[in-house]
Amino acid sequence: MSFDPSTLVYDARGLIPAIAQDADSGEVLMMAWMNAESVARTLSERRVTYWSRSRGAFWVKGETSGHVQELVDLRIDCDRDCLLVVVRQTGPACHTNRRSCFYSAVREGEEVELMAPMT
Amino acid sequence: MSFDPSTLVYDARGLIPAIAQDADSGEVLMMAWMNAESVARTLSERRVTYWSRSRGAFWVKGETSGHVQELVDLRIDCDRDCLLVVVRQTGPACHTNRRSCFYSAVREGEEVELMAPMT
Repeated sequence: MSFDPSTLVYDARGLIPAIAQDADSGEVLMMAWMNAESVARTLSERRVTYWSRSRGAFWVKGETSGHVQELVDLRIDCDRDCLLVVVRQTGPACHTNRRSCFYSAVREGEEVELMAPMT
Repeated sequence: MSFDPSTLVYDARGLIPAIAQDADSGEVLMMAWMNAESVARTLSERRVTYWSRSRGAFWVKGETSGHVQELVDLRIDCDRDCLLVVVRQTGPACHTNRRSCFYSAVREGEEVELMAPMT
């Protein structure tokens, strides 16, 4: 059937979480939020576009930094309330200049840093 | 520093999204929610424990189905408002009996099913 973004399940703010995964390495890069229009734009432009909760505006990932996410595949979960965007990531995904936002881990009760900023 | 779950950033309901990723294949399996006590239990028991929003109760993944998630690594994102749990998944992660909850994709404007239930 033809896909309609309004068939997804959004929260009270009209948002759905979107997990970005690197198409080549499988690494989970970040999680951010989309509204229905972000989903539509991401699909039509093939450039991942979130909704920035802090700015209250569309957020074309990498528009200012150049660290864009080209959409490879958009997946929907069983409850239709979470998205997985499989992407080709240019440069770091994280605003700290690390490849992934998930650069801290809890190991043996201690918080440790797993990766350094890209140079 | 010693890790304290109260240092994470929870939403107004006291919850944080947790993405589960297969430790071996890198496949993203599901996304669910945790509260601070779920995080603490997951770390101490090494068995992933979410908070069920529908039941309003702790949800030890696989407790009834046997499809448990053994914790391999718990990671925290840059904003401390999202978790990545790297797991060893027994059987399907999805309640539809599929390996991953993300079994639908949007391709050329159509919604398609990528994987069948496990037998």
